[in-house]
Amino acid sequence: MNSKAGYLRHLDIKNGQIDMSHGGGGRAMVQLISELFARHLANEYLSQGNDGACLPALNGRLIVSTDSHVVSPLFFPGGDIGSLSIHGTVNDIAVMGATPLYLTAGFIIEEGFPLIDLERIVISMACAAKDANVQIVAGDTKVVEKGKGDGIFITTTGIGFLPAGLTLSGSDVSQGDVVLVSGSLGDHGIAIMSQREHLAFDTPLKSDTAALNGLIAAMLSSGAMIKVMRDPTRGGLAATLNEIAHQSGLGIHLHESAIPVKPEVQAVCELLGLDAINIANEGKLIVICAAEHADQLLATMRNHPLGLDAAIIGVAVEDTNCFVQMKTKFGGQRMVDWLAGEQLPRIC
Amino acid sequence: MNSKAGYLRHLDIKNGQIDMSHGGGGRAMVQLISELFARHLANEYLSQGNDGACLPALNGRLIVSTDSHVVSPLFFPGGDIGSLSIHGTVNDIAVMGATPLYLTAGFIIEEGFPLIDLERIVISMACAAKDANVQIVAGDTKVVEKGKGDGIFITTTGIGFLPAGLTLSGSDVSQGDVVLVSGSLGDHGIAIMSQREHLAFDTPLKSDTAALNGLIAAMLSSGAMIKVMRDPTRGGLAATLNEIAHQSGLGIHLHESAIPVKPEVQAVCELLGLDAINIANEGKLIVICAAEHADQLLATMRNHPLGLDAAIIGVAVEDTNCFVQMKTKFGGQRMVDWLAGEQLPRIC
Repeated sequence: MNSKAGYLRHLDIKNGQIDMSHGGGGRAMVQLISELFARHLANEYLSQGNDGACLPALNGRLIVSTDSHVVSPLFFPGGDIGSLSIHGTVNDIAVMGATPLYLTAGFIIEEGFPLIDLERIVISMACAAKDANVQIVAGDTKVVEKGKGDGIFITTTGIGFLPAGLTLSGSDVSQGDVVLVSGSLGDHGIAIMSQREHLAFDTPLKSDTAALNGLIAAMLSSGAMIKVMRDPTRGGLAATLNEIAHQSGLGIHLHESAIPVKPEVQAVCELLGLDAINIANEGKLIVICAAEHADQLLATMRNHPLGLDAAIIGVAVEDTNCFVQMKTKFGGQRMVDWLAGEQLPRIC
Repeated sequence: MNSKAGYLRHLDIKNGQIDMSHGGGGRAMVQLISELFARHLANEYLSQGNDGACLPALNGRLIVSTDSHVVSPLFFPGGDIGSLSIHGTVNDIAVMGATPLYLTAGFIIEEGFPLIDLERIVISMACAAKDANVQIVAGDTKVVEKGKGDGIFITTTGIGFLPAGLTLSGSDVSQGDVVLVSGSLGDHGIAIMSQREHLAFDTPLKSDTAALNGLIAAMLSSGAMIKVMRDPTRGGLAATLNEIAHQSGLGIHLHESAIPVKPEVQAVCELLGLDAINIANEGKLIVICAAEHADQLLATMRNHPLGLDAAIIGVAVEDTNCFVQMKTKFGGQRMVDWLAGEQLPRIC
């Protein structure tokens, strides 16, 4: 007799729901962990079953990053909160030049959440983690009463290993360095927004959510002198470049006509009064490198499935105001500022 | 001119509230981070300001643990969600025998949450982290619409360093090993419950929330052969010992009369029909050690401020059913089982 599960029938994943007992530390929680989470996410570390996962020594610097995910809707064209929560944290580690290795996941679930949706999300996490070559080594589940949450929130924390000698930082950017982007901007935010506003298109818009560590590994081994990388999530290209401008003490000049934006994304932006350079991406990369290596780096990026539409979009310039400015398609010049307020809530 | 904060007045912490823009990736979020989070939590790693924190190499195994905190109410006698979110994760690392070093924090905040409460929570986190000798090295803030959250949820992830040669696990427990507890049980859960139910007492009940890494360091250097340690949080002593029993393949026999429970906690338990051994603690430790070292370990624990009421409460016995049983105060014997359902929701 398995006394641990003796009093409970198996989880009815097809028809069941999360109730408060699944967060209570008793049999129901143990069952949820073993029959749903561990079944899909199992690995040697998660299976240790102690309060913390014991991981092998990493003889190098660690890169650590955390992100809470509250995206709404939970399922969207191109992904869901599960894959997004893996990609977001993997990318934050990878843009530092590190190899992402381990993730933790904290779930806050609203009472009444369907188990079938939870399983779909956990399977999506498992697939995304496998594709990105990372392991989910520790987790936690809490349940809040109906009306005190919104389906599910997932907080992931990632740990990566940074090889000796490699340091990337916005403060290393020099005048004349070149700004590249790995592909079209705004796909994630506009896919979410279209779903929320029930906009329908001939070509369905898909989120670009993806793990960038493969692309980044190829770029790092290309030999190009990369100064800094960032994934332009919340706040989009505009926020990312303003951050880098301030870290570097330089200005940045962009060419609007060089910035890749899909026509269908551009169309929704015009419809809703948005600007693609302010919109969140979840599978795109901004990289700044020495001018003499820009063409070589661009070729490397275009050679990777996630960098097919990579482009050179701007240059770092002397500017004590650290302004980001853009030469528009019509030949004018405009400031590219941080947004003051909220453009698209709960995008990630 | 500081162009970064040029368009916004300083945060009005006394009267202000969180709005959706504080999670949007624009100026308002940058301001919240710099004027509130960074002001109280600053350290060399958090100040790097990149997507991930870069931490020095740790030449040993890592222990990693994560916990989402959804405690309600947010402020309770003896602590708040801020200190609890530090203690919970520090303790999960420390019970593995590791030295907790770094924490990350992901905040999910409900629109309308008062900035004054947020600051109080962040200050409480800063104090708890300082006391526990850990640094908060990375963070994230998301905002959800009013009615889609419950004030604030905080997910912390901790990283610790495990010295070579030390491994603690429930599977190392042998027949005859002795079970000790570091102090009275049920204080945290009953303090929360009393606050929620508006129960008033002559002696106010306080949560025991505390970081156990100092106590544990003293125990580890005492030379006692410690097999396993756990902090009995959700599910209390009963869940913790059932977990260990299953990991070890042994049974555990407890003496009810030896288990320290404060009279006021016992009184509330009787009033509400609860059992102190099922109730969550946030500053208590269960430890199992070789019988010949139990007295020495007990003396070490009682010599520490967090172990004054430590006691020997039971012994590991041969039992292929892995049952946890208790000799009651009245001389009977009863099963100590996992709770099937939910006793106290949102206790941590």
